Amino acid sequence: MSEQHTSARRPAVLIIGAGFGGLNAAQTLADQDVDVLVVDRHNFHLFSPLLYQVATSGLEPGEIASPVRGIFRDVSNVRFLLGEVEGIDPAARRVTILSKEGVRHEPYDYLILAAGSQTHTFGIEAVERYGFGLKTLSDGVVLRNHVLKNFEKAAWSDDAAQREALTTIVIVGGGPTGLETSGAFQELLGKVLREEYATQLGDVSGRVILIERLDHLLSPYPERLRRAARRQLESMGVEVVLGETVSDVTPDAVRLSSGRVIPTRTLIWAAGVKASPLARMLGVPLDRSGRVPVTTTLQVIGLQDVYVVGDLAYLEDERGEPYSMVIPVAKQQGQHAARNILRRARGKPQRSFHYHDRGLMATIGRSRAVAWIYYRVQLTGFIAWVAWLGLHLITLMGFRNRLNVFVNWVWNYLTYDRTVRIILEHAARDTSEQEAEPHDQPQDQPHNQPHNEVMPGR
Amino acid sequence: MSEQHTSARRPAVLIIGAGFGGLNAAQTLADQDVDVLVVDRHNFHLFSPLLYQVATSGLEPGEIASPVRGIFRDVSNVRFLLGEVEGIDPAARRVTILSKEGVRHEPYDYLILAAGSQTHTFGIEAVERYGFGLKTLSDGVVLRNHVLKNFEKAAWSDDAAQREALTTIVIVGGGPTGLETSGAFQELLGKVLREEYATQLGDVSGRVILIERLDHLLSPYPERLRRAARRQLESMGVEVVLGETVSDVTPDAVRLSSGRVIPTRTLIWAAGVKASPLARMLGVPLDRSGRVPVTTTLQVIGLQDVYVVGDLAYLEDERGEPYSMVIPVAKQQGQHAARNILRRARGKPQRSFHYHDRGLMATIGRSRAVAWIYYRVQLTGFIAWVAWLGLHLITLMGFRNRLNVFVNWVWNYLTYDRTVRIILEHAARDTSEQEAEPHDQPQDQPHNQPHNEVMPGR
Repeated sequence: MSEQHTSARRPAVLIIGAGFGGLNAAQTLADQDVDVLVVDRHNFHLFSPLLYQVATSGLEPGEIASPVRGIFRDVSNVRFLLGEVEGIDPAARRVTILSKEGVRHEPYDYLILAAGSQTHTFGIEAVERYGFGLKTLSDGVVLRNHVLKNFEKAAWSDDAAQREALTTIVIVGGGPTGLETSGAFQELLGKVLREEYATQLGDVSGRVILIERLDHLLSPYPERLRRAARRQLESMGVEVVLGETVSDVTPDAVRLSSGRVIPTRTLIWAAGVKASPLARMLGVPLDRSGRVPVTTTLQVIGLQDVYVVGDLAYLEDERGEPYSMVIPVAKQQGQHAARNILRRARGKPQRSFHYHDRGLMATIGRSRAVAWIYYRVQLTGFIAWVAWLGLHLITLMGFRNRLNVFVNWVWNYLTYDRTVRIILEHAARDTSEQEAEPHDQPQDQPHNQPHNEVMPGR
Repeated sequence: MSEQHTSARRPAVLIIGAGFGGLNAAQTLADQDVDVLVVDRHNFHLFSPLLYQVATSGLEPGEIASPVRGIFRDVSNVRFLLGEVEGIDPAARRVTILSKEGVRHEPYDYLILAAGSQTHTFGIEAVERYGFGLKTLSDGVVLRNHVLKNFEKAAWSDDAAQREALTTIVIVGGGPTGLETSGAFQELLGKVLREEYATQLGDVSGRVILIERLDHLLSPYPERLRRAARRQLESMGVEVVLGETVSDVTPDAVRLSSGRVIPTRTLIWAAGVKASPLARMLGVPLDRSGRVPVTTTLQVIGLQDVYVVGDLAYLEDERGEPYSMVIPVAKQQGQHAARNILRRARGKPQRSFHYHDRGLMATIGRSRAVAWIYYRVQLTGFIAWVAWLGLHLITLMGFRNRLNVFVNWVWNYLTYDRTVRIILEHAARDTSEQEAEPHDQPQDQPHNQPHNEVMPGR
């Protein structure tokens, strides 16, 4: 590696994870007097709030992903390395990184661990086996292919019961992800697929069912917005089932706690996330959800050179409530940890993290959303949707993506079209060696096993 | 299947292949007094002229693919079936179609075979094993991932020779595909990757080498345009090697007929296509390249209910020259076969096919192209490139795709950016059964084996 070393050695900051936390940390450190190395197992930053759009054929994978090297192309003090973190040695202050090319031990002066979270099935084996997560970009494409293939299969089938199972989508989890995914699938089924398969599917027209354990959707929201969200979903045609849990999953059906059996080949699990297993590499006690307790300066207790930000960090706010695993917290913590490192490097005292909370927002579908701005103003319907749209267009990474996403949204809005409705599957391939790709699962193991992934998730 | 049958039975037209030939046939038959079934093994039509843009991270896969069901959404007499053709029985007038859901025998009154062509490696085993084709949408994504992964591997490597092999791209074939692929990779390497990997790759900066068997590029073009194409490629930095063939390929190198060895991990084979093996299912004698000889009405000799169009049809023009395997011929033949079927159904005489040839056009890169309009006007450079761009924007399927592609092109032109630079790999997956996906190759077989595919290629 040909690196220029300046005469006075600058502090080395290693950032694990190029999600919202890691990326904001790196951007804060850009062009500052430190050397930054960002490590991720993907070569791109994922704009995860729009992942459900990939799953529902509204956007292309590349429209919500931005190559990390591209983001820092004009920044000379930020390097990138594609690889998996194999170990963290806080005593020696180095991280072991693994790729097919070998092993590297990268030293650091300061470490920012921003490895995020992954789908949490609460150990329900049948869900892990037959359910679909919606957390990684691959998840989105795999789910898109799966649903589109099932409709093509239904067009082949002469069995009405089989056709029903193939065209029914069950989503578990009444949070923002569950809501937007339900709404988007209902639009895809109701406005696009139903028409295109009409002659071949007959009376079977596709259903979307949303399951929530509690007796209301969107727990953190006030009652009025919870009810508005439910009303908007139902007005689209989504069946909302409250107060029920999934007791069993088979390849062809989902059984609920009430005993009701829903024939389906598609169970989407949006009921929770858990901390990345990378947290365990620090060797410090974790909280019961696997997150790393940090000080208000975002340092690991006992490891003052290690900062943890985002979903992986456990910190309580002024009222004693733990910060949620949401993107704005991750972004602000990433920025804050980076600033604290710069303050230390300059011999200045660190500052405590304070979250600037602008409220809550969830989208349901075309012209449908709920928003709770600064926990004061409650918006529903079209005006909430426009607010949601504007926010995401503004924050979406990269100008071209923004333009394309805007074109796609306007087009979708006017036509209900879903142009990205392509079934595209391809195996990893390499001409030089035999290699096991992380996403290449053996054929007898019909799922991607998100719980086995041990690298930064977003 | 719940189909409405009109009282008077309408002729059933079965179209195999949703490439340019099959699609134009189906569009000609739309809303006419026939029942049309389109069969393809993919659910989309591929705008193949821009496939090289997917391989070089310029466009998204979905931007050059259009779902067949979407194209015919408002057309009541055109149905679609996703599946592989297993057999054609001209005597019984039916086609056997296979999918994971089972087998179907679809009857026809008229068959239009538009199964296209596939990559032809002329039986060179090492090319089949280590080379990359660029014919299917999967080919494009697989190649994109491969090249981007190789640059990430190079960033890991401390071995300069290995870094060179990882960042050298060899393209075989001096036709339009070879030229545009060379030019686009040179732009990706020279303008984007070289900068982003500068600190990690040092002096190794990536090379593109184009190999052509003959002593000139673009055989069908006049000498002036051949030389202009070569000059434009070389001005970009592409090394053009003429009068040489590939004598051997290993995982790490390509050996040329002169004995020269080029260290490379990426050999792209753009040196030829061959007819789809589906031609053999007709049971008639084929020409030596595997194409089906047809009459001037595009009917198979001896099988008057079977029409063959596009790359799969062998027909000579007025001067006794066989029509080339190019898109305009396929489009016009698809349309012509459909019109002849409609004429027969109405008791009218069929007409002979005459090709309306507007000339030749090949693009090389940003502001670089050659065009031979109506075999009279010779254009080079920026004006030829604008002509090429306009033609492709006009003919690209679907309004939204056109808009997005335009946005991407303008953006790329102004910034040299390549936003779609994401490495995204995922295996096929199914929750309901164990299935062998056509693109899931076992790990010990490091290629997609295009020569084994027995279905309509495009």
